[in-house]
Amino acid sequence: MSAKDVYESFHIYDTTLRDGSQQEGLSLAVADKLAIARHLDALGVGFIEGGWPGAVPKDTEFFRRAQTELDLKHAQLAAFGKTRRTGVKAADDPLVAALRESGAPIVTLVAKSHVRHVDLALRTTLEENLAMIRDTVEHLHAEGRRVFLDAEHFFDGYLADPAYALECLRTAAEAGADVAVLCDTNGGMLPTQLADIVHEVREASGTRIGIHTHDDAACAVANALAAVDAGATHVQGTANGYGERSGNANLFSVVANLQLKLGREVIPPAGLAEMTRIAHAVAEVTNLAPNPQAPYVGVSAFAHKAGLHASAVRVDPDLYQHIDPQLVGNDMRMLVSEMAGRASIELKGRELGFDLSADPDTLARVTNRVKELEAQGYSFEAADASFELLLRGELGGAPVRFFEVLSWRTFADRLADGLVVNQATVKLRVKGEEVLAAGEGNGPVNALDNALRAALAAAYPALAGLELMDYKVRILTGDHGTASRTRVLITTSDGVAEWSTVGVDENVITASWQALVDAVTFGLLAKGETVV
Amino acid sequence: MSAKDVYESFHIYDTTLRDGSQQEGLSLAVADKLAIARHLDALGVGFIEGGWPGAVPKDTEFFRRAQTELDLKHAQLAAFGKTRRTGVKAADDPLVAALRESGAPIVTLVAKSHVRHVDLALRTTLEENLAMIRDTVEHLHAEGRRVFLDAEHFFDGYLADPAYALECLRTAAEAGADVAVLCDTNGGMLPTQLADIVHEVREASGTRIGIHTHDDAACAVANALAAVDAGATHVQGTANGYGERSGNANLFSVVANLQLKLGREVIPPAGLAEMTRIAHAVAEVTNLAPNPQAPYVGVSAFAHKAGLHASAVRVDPDLYQHIDPQLVGNDMRMLVSEMAGRASIELKGRELGFDLSADPDTLARVTNRVKELEAQGYSFEAADASFELLLRGELGGAPVRFFEVLSWRTFADRLADGLVVNQATVKLRVKGEEVLAAGEGNGPVNALDNALRAALAAAYPALAGLELMDYKVRILTGDHGTASRTRVLITTSDGVAEWSTVGVDENVITASWQALVDAVTFGLLAKGETVV
Repeated sequence: MSAKDVYESFHIYDTTLRDGSQQEGLSLAVADKLAIARHLDALGVGFIEGGWPGAVPKDTEFFRRAQTELDLKHAQLAAFGKTRRTGVKAADDPLVAALRESGAPIVTLVAKSHVRHVDLALRTTLEENLAMIRDTVEHLHAEGRRVFLDAEHFFDGYLADPAYALECLRTAAEAGADVAVLCDTNGGMLPTQLADIVHEVREASGTRIGIHTHDDAACAVANALAAVDAGATHVQGTANGYGERSGNANLFSVVANLQLKLGREVIPPAGLAEMTRIAHAVAEVTNLAPNPQAPYVGVSAFAHKAGLHASAVRVDPDLYQHIDPQLVGNDMRMLVSEMAGRASIELKGRELGFDLSADPDTLARVTNRVKELEAQGYSFEAADASFELLLRGELGGAPVRFFEVLSWRTFADRLADGLVVNQATVKLRVKGEEVLAAGEGNGPVNALDNALRAALAAAYPALAGLELMDYKVRILTGDHGTASRTRVLITTSDGVAEWSTVGVDENVITASWQALVDAVTFGLLAKGETVV
Repeated sequence: MSAKDVYESFHIYDTTLRDGSQQEGLSLAVADKLAIARHLDALGVGFIEGGWPGAVPKDTEFFRRAQTELDLKHAQLAAFGKTRRTGVKAADDPLVAALRESGAPIVTLVAKSHVRHVDLALRTTLEENLAMIRDTVEHLHAEGRRVFLDAEHFFDGYLADPAYALECLRTAAEAGADVAVLCDTNGGMLPTQLADIVHEVREASGTRIGIHTHDDAACAVANALAAVDAGATHVQGTANGYGERSGNANLFSVVANLQLKLGREVIPPAGLAEMTRIAHAVAEVTNLAPNPQAPYVGVSAFAHKAGLHASAVRVDPDLYQHIDPQLVGNDMRMLVSEMAGRASIELKGRELGFDLSADPDTLARVTNRVKELEAQGYSFEAADASFELLLRGELGGAPVRFFEVLSWRTFADRLADGLVVNQATVKLRVKGEEVLAAGEGNGPVNALDNALRAALAAAYPALAGLELMDYKVRILTGDHGTASRTRVLITTSDGVAEWSTVGVDENVITASWQALVDAVTFGLLAKGETVV
């Protein structure tokens, strides 16, 4: 089959830009939507629902800009909209006109299929609802658009009145709709019952069936798979499972399950191997922290901490993985943790290029030091660079240090005119010289970071290319009356590689300073500087 | 049936304290474990697995302290451990002794049931593995312990060599084990195949079957339900789905699905109604941010943002909810958002006690103001108090203000002796008087917060009881070359109620200051103070 046939024989339909953006805390600008569409196209989905032109001004704009700014390789764009209003002709409804004029080759029409919703939400008769479906589908079909029907609240509707729910699907199909998408809008279905209904509907309606699920019962992905098992050949979902309430079916999990476990090629394998990168790139655009536990694509998805496992993983990694993480562009990781013990510290060392197996004393010393620091609140699981500095310090017999800290100060002033100024001073001893430097920034740590680099700039010009990429603060609540501590994680980049460092202290600025010093020290090591 | 019969006829078995604590970033002190056990007991689970005494010192300590410090109403404690080592008697294995001496009435033994794991990880013969199972179960059973068997990697093992996998279960049952728990250790199973295997195993083994699933294929909960459908009457899972890699089956989702959708009473209904509170209380102990999207118990689980829905929700909430959120102690919420439009702002206003339906001008003004601020990076979805201040400001024709800010300064000094000091000064005009006050803290914002309250203390003594509960910082990346902004969310408590406020600025301290001022202003309003 050609790629095009693959996409047509089984539809992977992404609705991140429409239904996904209903998630609490998620708000996408038009530029964000265009960026996400490009990522989804790179993954290789067949269809991208861009939004609701006419109803949401941002979405009208998205479809306008898409015509010149989006050069999709795989995917086709779909415009989402609803059936015509009651009592008007489809051709005269301005919202239907907006769909027609969006430039999208596909229109996905949402329609009521639940008798109570027709009555209470739409406030019309069952006959008029059917006419609205028929007219709108016929009109758009006659205008040359391909039409998919989203049957909203379908499963609840089918349980309430199966004959009417089916009649909605048949009406759409007779009017020219290509797919009837059964939507579990409230997300409450469980797989067994859902599969039975899909099976019945497929037999009774004679149309191509699609499935749209939500995770309110923690079964969105399983429900999508159950529907496919019962004959659905069109699956809707969203990147990273974004969506209202508990989210939509995570399209990444659905695709990986279909392709790697059920043997259906639904996207190009090359796209699948990019899935982890794409999941994180989309999260970057949405500005929501990626879920580390996300199946297949999360940073923890193939991370092992248990001491019990860590020793066996050395023997054969496949014994402890449900798939080869490379297939989805992810990696196995060993976590350094108090739970893990020596076996995982040894493995982690090997990952960083140090063979500790021949040196049990150092291994024991490093393990104890990690346990001691973790008891204070440090966490090396997400701070590889700080762990490597610790390891090198233990191997070398002294901490890795390029400079001595004499003092620092950082402050924010809100002046009488309302202007706020952040400045910092840092005094170091570098290569035998005392250096005092100042920096400013948009916060006290940013000012301190700039002052630190300024103090090191003359002695270490290589530091100029470093950039602070991410800064995370966690309050660790105190146990047994001790004061609460703050853990700071910093990610730094030199334009090629990224590394993460950690600092812990009761004082957030002190913790930040530790992480900054580790970040710069690791950067100097990476540039090949030698400790003086 | 009595409560005890309920728990015995269907086992809800929690393994948060053992398998859940394998999650990356999760580390529980003994006091944390005791606290979580109390929360799970309040929920009404039948069994709590406390850890691995003998192997993990913290867990040995947990079982020791549990005997005097835990007064469980519903649950029984289980100690986790493994079958005896190769070549020794069970009675002589110190790890088996630790299980015997833990004081737990139940011992859950993990055993290999996969031929390749016996060979490569255990490095022994298939016969010796069976002997290890038989001897350890017999010994503990003879010592008066109730024994459950966790058959590790069972499904992969059954697919590799079904006869041997079954033989492991039969051996355990003959030796006195009460339940054979089939573990999908690597988490890669899908519901249909898993259900088929559970069905076959139940017929062939004749023992009581339990199920233990992981979420690597996003099907942990569905897999647990599929196993129950196929005859399993013992389900293992963890609070909030904590666990290694993508986590374990979320026990809260499993229980709610079983009880509310499948009609099985597996915990007391009073416990179910506490589930949302308990889920958040456990998250508080683990110090992991609760997942807002968590099914049933997440703060977003019943939150509506879509304009399309918001207007219909007013007609009949049940049309848009899969269950009544009260059943699990959760609530429907309306979100204020640019997507939502007037209908949701009106609903939100009503939730706060303001009827905007009669005042379309104000409604339009508030809606526009919210859209304008959201475009700048504000988010009112998680900042009810800031939204209420905005609303009251628009209704009253002027911002709600109890004081005028003249200037402030906050700084951190690292002195030559290594000591770090944070201090702040704040100058306000309060009730006509200029007030200058100082504060110190463990960071610049904490110092500023203390200085602000100090400046207000004389005029408003009611502020003394306020406490800053949570402080969150989000970097919002800039769009189209604008500078990045920082959003700060602050949660404040007066010991009874909690409220959240938001601030946005390029400078993190300025953003924090805005949120602090809103927090204090809302606190004064709540105390019944009148704006002067």
